[in-house]
Amino acid sequence: MQRKSFWDLECPIARSLDQLGDGWTLLIVRNALLGARRFQDFEQGLAIPPTTLARRLTTLVAHGLLVQRRYPGKPAREEYALTPKGLDLVPVLLAFGAWGNRWLAPDGTSIECVDPRTGRAVDPVLVDRRTREKLVAGRVALRPGPKASRSLRKALHPHRVFGAKRREERAA
Amino acid sequence: MQRKSFWDLECPIARSLDQLGDGWTLLIVRNALLGARRFQDFEQGLAIPPTTLARRLTTLVAHGLLVQRRYPGKPAREEYALTPKGLDLVPVLLAFGAWGNRWLAPDGTSIECVDPRTGRAVDPVLVDRRTREKLVAGRVALRPGPKASRSLRKALHPHRVFGAKRREERAA
Repeated sequence: MQRKSFWDLECPIARSLDQLGDGWTLLIVRNALLGARRFQDFEQGLAIPPTTLARRLTTLVAHGLLVQRRYPGKPAREEYALTPKGLDLVPVLLAFGAWGNRWLAPDGTSIECVDPRTGRAVDPVLVDRRTREKLVAGRVALRPGPKASRSLRKALHPHRVFGAKRREERAA
Repeated sequence: MQRKSFWDLECPIARSLDQLGDGWTLLIVRNALLGARRFQDFEQGLAIPPTTLARRLTTLVAHGLLVQRRYPGKPAREEYALTPKGLDLVPVLLAFGAWGNRWLAPDGTSIECVDPRTGRAVDPVLVDRRTREKLVAGRVALRPGPKASRSLRKALHPHRVFGAKRREERAA
């Protein structure tokens, strides 16, 4: 993906997608979060061509999402482990999964979230850490941060509501 | 992306990535959430080649994330508006943006979240709707849902912790 707009150099969504922008990458992270460690684990679990997998793993290591480790044994095992940066993708993947369960599972879900200590069902929802209010379309806005360029500062001044409806859309 | 594993037919993350798996698609949704409506809005805002944009918009309409509307005027305007399914991607994109701000903005953020009514900073965090506990690596598990196939039910039985560390990783 080639991007040139000033937005995309500064937007944290665009920056994230630069490191995670293809579906395979996030599925490799998903499988690592579910316990995959060895090359063969990923290859079998994802039915991914080995050359594609090797390229994606190299990129994930280069971006600091995975580290390669050698564990002693006979033979020694080469494994990929998630870094704190990689482990911190749990909320992103759960937000994806929750959206998929809401919109792409009309006959019922195949996978659900659960609290591993209590076994109770868990329903992932994005909220503001302070007020605990749900962050949904129209209830949150974006504003320039301290490192925003002058053009971004102007474009977002003073803030831009995320998911606001226009007058004619509200009427529709 | 070609996928064959049984996981990916049923996993809500994989299903979501099938509809949203390339970076352009999520950036088009981002710009729509920020107010882009006309073809030219997206073209200019993203610096995206028009053929690529046209293909992605068609797919987004086919998947029910955008609707095409004609507004009267001289000339009439053709616009793309987000559906409820598209608007519901706000939490996914905010989770992406929060991750990007944490890991890809070492010198400070360019874009932040704010409450449009109060102007106060907002810090997006994924929690369980009921307990309000943070959903982070090791504190949430996946289990088969009512529509899980037999093989998925077996693979996830009784549940699988998402982001669990292995013994040797905890020691490292």
